[in-house]
Amino acid sequence: MTTTPLPPPPDPPAPPPSPASTVRRTAGRARYDEAAVHAVFDAGFVAHVGIADGDEPTVIPMVYARQGDRLLLHGSVASRLMRHGAVGFPVCVAVTHVDGLVLARSAFHHSVNYRSVVVRGVATRVADPEALAAGFAVLVDHVAPGRSAEVRAPDRAETRQTLLLEVPLHDASVKVRTGPPIDDERDLDLAVWAGVVPLPVVPGPPIPADDLPAGDLVPPAVVTHP
Amino acid sequence: MTTTPLPPPPDPPAPPPSPASTVRRTAGRARYDEAAVHAVFDAGFVAHVGIADGDEPTVIPMVYARQGDRLLLHGSVASRLMRHGAVGFPVCVAVTHVDGLVLARSAFHHSVNYRSVVVRGVATRVADPEALAAGFAVLVDHVAPGRSAEVRAPDRAETRQTLLLEVPLHDASVKVRTGPPIDDERDLDLAVWAGVVPLPVVPGPPIPADDLPAGDLVPPAVVTHP
Repeated sequence: MTTTPLPPPPDPPAPPPSPASTVRRTAGRARYDEAAVHAVFDAGFVAHVGIADGDEPTVIPMVYARQGDRLLLHGSVASRLMRHGAVGFPVCVAVTHVDGLVLARSAFHHSVNYRSVVVRGVATRVADPEALAAGFAVLVDHVAPGRSAEVRAPDRAETRQTLLLEVPLHDASVKVRTGPPIDDERDLDLAVWAGVVPLPVVPGPPIPADDLPAGDLVPPAVVTHP
Repeated sequence: MTTTPLPPPPDPPAPPPSPASTVRRTAGRARYDEAAVHAVFDAGFVAHVGIADGDEPTVIPMVYARQGDRLLLHGSVASRLMRHGAVGFPVCVAVTHVDGLVLARSAFHHSVNYRSVVVRGVATRVADPEALAAGFAVLVDHVAPGRSAEVRAPDRAETRQTLLLEVPLHDASVKVRTGPPIDDERDLDLAVWAGVVPLPVVPGPPIPADDLPAGDLVPPAVVTHP
């Protein structure tokens, strides 16, 4: 949710990890290095997860966090993902940050400034109790750093209701667009405003729950987000 | 991108349009009426589009706009969607607005305030030249109202490079969560802050392109967005 620029690309640039992850359209905007992949995932916490059932696609928004070189996806055992069972199944997970509207002098050159990451892989269920507990803590700390140590940890019944999936991050691609519109030479004299409208996510003041004792301090985990 | 509340649900509530679109998990958050579906789409302009190729899912972020009871998806003829040819193919299109972080006293009851819409349907290519021209105008006006009349319209070569897909909106579902965390009775006395951190998108001041004459006024289409 921050608009922090990505780290500089490695030299030489990392190659595409697979044919499926190779960016074809506007390939100059693509990155394949781990630092870029991690940075785009770390800047958000809601992903769109695609699954396929024959030729029928399904896209589900899910809360996620990164744990090293894998992505953790958080769901419920009541969700339709459970129909895919405990065995692994192919997923395509996309996270897109919309950073700004790019308004050009022609309709055609209108664009969007964005950071986008797509990972393909096999999602498997995290079943080991210790890995589950660690994963839950990573998810909570991802949205509010340090908070897993403040709150009550999941009990056995809550753990049973929660579905945690992991997806390796090695087959991923990043696309980024930044900067002003790129107008055709022929359009530069048109009497049309051109430029960028930034669209940052700006966290508002925290709203305490009604049942919180008056005067309670907002802890660092909350005020420092995101 | 606005956090405008949805219109009130109809009485009686609209039923799910199909088994695939029936919300199973936290079904009390679901809406199926046209007003809710339109409102969630209209509040954004980047969707995540899922397609399936056998059991291999792909998710692509795409710019969209709503035109009546159909969704227009904007892409390039160079994109991998073109591999699906000019005939229709099944898609699942999701748009999610993340409105806030919901921080509870237990890890388990942490949540997200959001408005989410998912539509399933067959995407077909818009080929008629007049429908294409109208569709491009809808897309530009959706991100900056009135702007299609200000800018240069697409010429023939630009039109040929642009892929416009349409998806009917009749098989859609909306899910919404609002409000404070819902903690267990047993956790209310824990010394943990609980509440909501709002995460609105707040447009920043427009940044004029470097090649714009100094002193140019920002037109209403820009300042009124979103």
